[in-house]
Amino acid sequence: MIKTLGYAAQSATSPLDSFRFDRREPGVDDVLIEILHCGVCHSDLHIVRNEWGGTTYPVVPGHEIVGRVVKVGAGVKGFKPGDLAGVGCMVDSCRSCPECLEGLEQYCRNEIIFTYNSPDRNAGGMTYGGYSGCVVVDEKFVLRIPANLDLPAVAPLLCAGITTYSPLRHWKVGKGDTVGVVGLGGLGHMAVKLSHAFGANTVMFTTSPGKAADAKRLGADEVVISKNADEMKKQANRFDFIINTVAAPHNLDAFLQLLKRDATMCMVGVPALPHPSPSVGNLIFRRRQLAGSLIGGIRETQEMLDFCGAHGIVSDIERIPIQKINEAYERMLRSDVKYRFVIDMASLAS
Amino acid sequence: MIKTLGYAAQSATSPLDSFRFDRREPGVDDVLIEILHCGVCHSDLHIVRNEWGGTTYPVVPGHEIVGRVVKVGAGVKGFKPGDLAGVGCMVDSCRSCPECLEGLEQYCRNEIIFTYNSPDRNAGGMTYGGYSGCVVVDEKFVLRIPANLDLPAVAPLLCAGITTYSPLRHWKVGKGDTVGVVGLGGLGHMAVKLSHAFGANTVMFTTSPGKAADAKRLGADEVVISKNADEMKKQANRFDFIINTVAAPHNLDAFLQLLKRDATMCMVGVPALPHPSPSVGNLIFRRRQLAGSLIGGIRETQEMLDFCGAHGIVSDIERIPIQKINEAYERMLRSDVKYRFVIDMASLAS
Repeated sequence: MIKTLGYAAQSATSPLDSFRFDRREPGVDDVLIEILHCGVCHSDLHIVRNEWGGTTYPVVPGHEIVGRVVKVGAGVKGFKPGDLAGVGCMVDSCRSCPECLEGLEQYCRNEIIFTYNSPDRNAGGMTYGGYSGCVVVDEKFVLRIPANLDLPAVAPLLCAGITTYSPLRHWKVGKGDTVGVVGLGGLGHMAVKLSHAFGANTVMFTTSPGKAADAKRLGADEVVISKNADEMKKQANRFDFIINTVAAPHNLDAFLQLLKRDATMCMVGVPALPHPSPSVGNLIFRRRQLAGSLIGGIRETQEMLDFCGAHGIVSDIERIPIQKINEAYERMLRSDVKYRFVIDMASLAS
Repeated sequence: MIKTLGYAAQSATSPLDSFRFDRREPGVDDVLIEILHCGVCHSDLHIVRNEWGGTTYPVVPGHEIVGRVVKVGAGVKGFKPGDLAGVGCMVDSCRSCPECLEGLEQYCRNEIIFTYNSPDRNAGGMTYGGYSGCVVVDEKFVLRIPANLDLPAVAPLLCAGITTYSPLRHWKVGKGDTVGVVGLGGLGHMAVKLSHAFGANTVMFTTSPGKAADAKRLGADEVVISKNADEMKKQANRFDFIINTVAAPHNLDAFLQLLKRDATMCMVGVPALPHPSPSVGNLIFRRRQLAGSLIGGIRETQEMLDFCGAHGIVSDIERIPIQKINEAYERMLRSDVKYRFVIDMASLAS
């Protein structure tokens, strides 16, 4: 066993604090990764505070992991010690259902093993995530990291990046399309960068006029203040695709009305309370669609990382030591972060 | 002008009663049709009672029209006196927007002229529908009727038929698919017949165990009582497509959960009050879609009629004289009809 130091919450109301646990020795197909940086996703906070239910304590969050390979099992072909490596939201799945066979492990019919707070098939107990010194993962769930990118800023690609890349690709966003991005946070800022990189005319919808300049810097061609009814009215029937990154309950009709005939708005955030019920009429009268999308499969996550490498895309981040994690959660709740906290894992030792 | 007798409502609270008005003389592109039968759609009742707002009185309802051509304008090529002819929900549109040019007039960006209760560009005032002795329509909006079908039972194809045919076609339902039909009424019974004819394994969802035998007679391979939670649970993740014909507010999640990954539930009824808000999680965790669809274009309506001719498909109807129309509305509200009332327009003269 590998003695590991991490940060865990012991209950829904206790702050994260240091926690010692064991990782398994790498098996024949496993990669042992020294974690260098770990992004802070809003899901971490939801699960730490048991806001979605189902949290098992202690919980070590973190699923935006980048680091360096320390050791590999005898069967590992894709990684060797010294390589950069990444781990996202999943560390295993059933590998045999149609979804897994298609490379869509995120929709596995049987059992996705999430990077934390899932039953650990190998070590027993629950999986522990990336707020820790190292992680052991089957190479099938380990990603290669392009060498040209700023490593800490790569970490959020493993969740925020793929969560927005996957639907933009699935709905074939590209040149000639007008794409709306609702909400400028961790997910939204990646959606703007990616939609722009795909060549789409990208329109940012935000409630905050103060975010307009930043949205344009990130790649938005236009910014619409979604609280302004007149501005919103001008956008009607204009969009080929909208990615909605806002998890707080809000009026979906305001955005569904902006879709062209046959176009889709895809939700990527799960609200704690339901959105007001969208109007079926808005769907019927232009054959529009309301959809959802969950992260992305391993193959597509690698494709996304390679795409980001080729286009020089990373997340806008603020680096923090692990000791500031509880404060970072409070700031995240106030949207006081541009646009992702990333933990320097070297701070664990300090 | 052509003196015409019809049945109209003079206000939201008055019963339908006889009403005399003028039709225009057929212009160069027009077809004058003697109406033989007209289906009774639930929309007729909604609009007569102003339940959706926007009704102009007097209103002559009816948009499931079949009859015989009496006279055609000099420019008419597709019809001659003596031909059977049909008219559905639309009698004109802008004809120049991308939707109209694609044959999707039902999604016209500028101005659909519905068969009744729309501003009448030709005659002024409002359009008057099929609860009447004759109608004058541009031949572009007139349908050919297969000669082999029972004529009164064809009438409901013009709305109930195309409203279910179009989404089943758009989402490419066919052999090897498992298709759910929610609700066994005017729309639902056509959806079952059409889905079955397309070769799909067709599952009827109804709240009424008493409808099971009838659903099977209409073409359902299986019937699920949607109030039975255990039965519903067994259907999870099973459906390639669901067409939901129920306009009364109900729990959409109960059906969204039954969709496979990437599958769609399409709504075809507009509820007077919103459905309870569907869970975004049910969309996200299998990349499902909630969509809507509105009737169908003229080209597709003709395709549907030809398909029904080739497959011997008509509506199950109960014929009534026009004098029973108010009683028929009350019975429709109690779902006491299998599955569509059709008015014998010969009764107008009696």
